[in-house]
Amino acid sequence: MPDKIRIALDAMGGDHGPAIVLPAAELSLTRHPDIEFILFGDRAVVEPLLDAHPKLKAKAQLVHTTVAIRMDDKPSQALRYGRWKSSMWLALDAVKKHDADVAVSAGNTGALMAMARFNLKMMEGVERPAIAALWPTIKGESIVLDVGASIGADAAHLINLAAMGSAMARVLFDIEKPTVGLLNIGVEEVKGLEEVREAGTLLREGAFLDFEYVGFVEGDDIGKGTTDVIVTEGFAGNIALKTAEGTARQIGHYLRGAISRTWQARLGYLLAREAFQALRDKMDPRKSNGGVFLGLNGIVIKSHGGADAEGFASAIDMGYDMVRYDLLAKISQSLARDRQAITTAHAAAGAAL
Amino acid sequence: MPDKIRIALDAMGGDHGPAIVLPAAELSLTRHPDIEFILFGDRAVVEPLLDAHPKLKAKAQLVHTTVAIRMDDKPSQALRYGRWKSSMWLALDAVKKHDADVAVSAGNTGALMAMARFNLKMMEGVERPAIAALWPTIKGESIVLDVGASIGADAAHLINLAAMGSAMARVLFDIEKPTVGLLNIGVEEVKGLEEVREAGTLLREGAFLDFEYVGFVEGDDIGKGTTDVIVTEGFAGNIALKTAEGTARQIGHYLRGAISRTWQARLGYLLAREAFQALRDKMDPRKSNGGVFLGLNGIVIKSHGGADAEGFASAIDMGYDMVRYDLLAKISQSLARDRQAITTAHAAAGAAL
Repeated sequence: MPDKIRIALDAMGGDHGPAIVLPAAELSLTRHPDIEFILFGDRAVVEPLLDAHPKLKAKAQLVHTTVAIRMDDKPSQALRYGRWKSSMWLALDAVKKHDADVAVSAGNTGALMAMARFNLKMMEGVERPAIAALWPTIKGESIVLDVGASIGADAAHLINLAAMGSAMARVLFDIEKPTVGLLNIGVEEVKGLEEVREAGTLLREGAFLDFEYVGFVEGDDIGKGTTDVIVTEGFAGNIALKTAEGTARQIGHYLRGAISRTWQARLGYLLAREAFQALRDKMDPRKSNGGVFLGLNGIVIKSHGGADAEGFASAIDMGYDMVRYDLLAKISQSLARDRQAITTAHAAAGAAL
Repeated sequence: MPDKIRIALDAMGGDHGPAIVLPAAELSLTRHPDIEFILFGDRAVVEPLLDAHPKLKAKAQLVHTTVAIRMDDKPSQALRYGRWKSSMWLALDAVKKHDADVAVSAGNTGALMAMARFNLKMMEGVERPAIAALWPTIKGESIVLDVGASIGADAAHLINLAAMGSAMARVLFDIEKPTVGLLNIGVEEVKGLEEVREAGTLLREGAFLDFEYVGFVEGDDIGKGTTDVIVTEGFAGNIALKTAEGTARQIGHYLRGAISRTWQARLGYLLAREAFQALRDKMDPRKSNGGVFLGLNGIVIKSHGGADAEGFASAIDMGYDMVRYDLLAKISQSLARDRQAITTAHAAAGAAL
C-alpha cells in the first residue's frame, strides 16, 4: 500500500476554478492527511488562494500554466489549443509520468475524456472508455456505467463494462464477486435491442470469475440496489443519471414547499429537523459527485462542473479511494482473470454480427 | 363535443385483471358521469364483479370472451392466439369499429402495441408508434415521448414525435404553441448522436406552426419543466421514466425512515401530516399512470400492469381527456398544418443520410 496518495488537480477546471478547487482540496486533506497535491493552474490566481489555505499549501506543489480549457469548448478545440500546456492536460500528464496517482478535474467532460484518451491511452483489451458513477440506492450504493463516455455499445463493449464495473465494485464495496445487471427496457421483441440481448446471452453463458451476472434490470432497479453494478451504453446511462438527479431535486423542492405551508408543518419540521437533515444528506448529490473514467492507463476523476467545495472534495475522495484500493491493478486483474471468458464472449459477439 | 365518451376496457389486462379494472371504472365514472363503458372479458369472472358495482353496471356493457393475453407473452405469441378474440384485441377493435372512442388496457405493453398497430394501423405520415407519458414537474406537467414503443429513432421520426407530442400538449395543457426540447447528453462531438443533432438542426431551422423548438435538454430538465414536450427515442425515454419512478420511490423510502427515527421526528410528522399528505400526492406515481399510444388511427391508453384501482382510474381519466379534447383530430391537424415544414425536414433528413 502506498505511503502517500499523490493527486493531480486541474485547478482551473469547473465553473468556479481555483475558488472551489483549493478549499475542496483542503477539505479532503483534513479527511485524508496522507494526500499530496500537485496543482496545475495560473500562479496569479492560485498562489494567493494557496496562501489563504496554509494547511493545503504545506502539502501542495503548484505548477504554473496560463492555459485553461473553457467549459464550452469542443474536445477538438480543447485538444488544439490545450494539448501539452493546459492545466487539464498537465494534470493528466502527471498521471502518465507517474508523478501523480490520479488526476481530478471539474473541467469540460468531452475535453477531459479526449485528452485522457490521447495522453493515457486505452488499457489493453479495452477499445472505448467509460465513465462510472457511484449511485446511492436503498441498500447502499451501486456503480452505474457508462454514464456518458461513449454513445452506443456493441455486445463486446457491454461485456468489458461489466468486467471494469465489477473491478470498481470490488475496490469500493469490498465484495468478492459483485452482481451485475444489464439495463434494458421491459418490452420484448422490439427491434434495436439486439446488442443488449446478445450481451445478455453471452454474460449468462460465460464463465466469469469476477462477477455474477444477474440478468436484465430496468430503470427502477437502479435505486432499489438490485445489483452492485449496472451496465448500459453512455447515452441512456447519462440520461438515467441526470434524470435521477433532477427527480431528487424536484422532490426536494416539493418537500421544502410542503414543510413551509402551514405553521403546524413548520413546527413539525423544527421537531423533525435532525431527521430531515439525515434525509438531505442521503439526497445530497454532492456526496456522490465524481465520475470515474475507466478503461484508461491511469485513473481520472471527473467532478461536476458546477460542484461546490464539498462536492469537489467528494470527487477528490473518490480518487483517493481508487488509488488506495488499487483500482487499476484490480481492473487489469479482472480483465486478465476473465480474459478467457471475455475473449470467448467477444468471439461469439463477433460471430453473431 | 360528443355527448358520451365511450371507453372500451380490456377487463382481463394487468396483474390483477377485473378485480382492479372494475372498481377503477366505477371510480372514474364518479368523476366523469358521461362515460359509457364496454367491458371485454370472461363473463364468469366479470359478471359477479359487475353485480357488486351497480353504478358501473348501469353504464356498462359486457362483451364475453374467454381469451386473455398473458402478461409475459411475446407480442408474436399474443397475436397468434389472441387476434380476433382476446379481450385486448376486442377492446382495440371496438375503437376501430367506432363502437368506442378509446381503449384502455393494463395488459402486456408489447402485445398491446403489436395488436394496436395491426388493427388500427398507423396514421398517414407516421411510420412508427410512440408512447407518451405525462410527467409531473416543478412547474406542472410535461409530456415525454417516446417512453418505449420504438427503439432508436432517425431525425424524421424525432420530428414526428415533436409534432405529435405538441398536439397532445395542446389537448392536455391548453397551450397554443407548446415548447419542445430534444433530450440529449451534454457531451459534444461524441459519435452516435448524429440523428439527435440532425433532428435538432432541422427543428431549429423548420418553420413549425404548432410548436416552438427550444433546443437540446438534458435528463434533469424533465423534472424542472424546462419544456412542455420532451422528445427522445424509446430506449432512453423508457429508462428515464423508470429511473425517475425508482428515484421517487427511493426518496419516499428514505423519508419514511427519517420520520420514524426519533420521537421528535414522529411528533413532527404528526404535526406536518397534511403537508406530508400533499407531498405524497405529488409523488404518487398512480396519479400520472397511463401511457398514450400516439401515431395510430385511434386512441389507446396503456396502464401500468401493476396499477391498483386508483392508478387504473387515472389511466381511464387520461383516455377520457384525450377523447373529450379531441386528441386524434388535433394530431392530424398538427401534422397537416406543419406538413410543409415536416416534409421539408424529412426530405432534408433523407438527403443527409
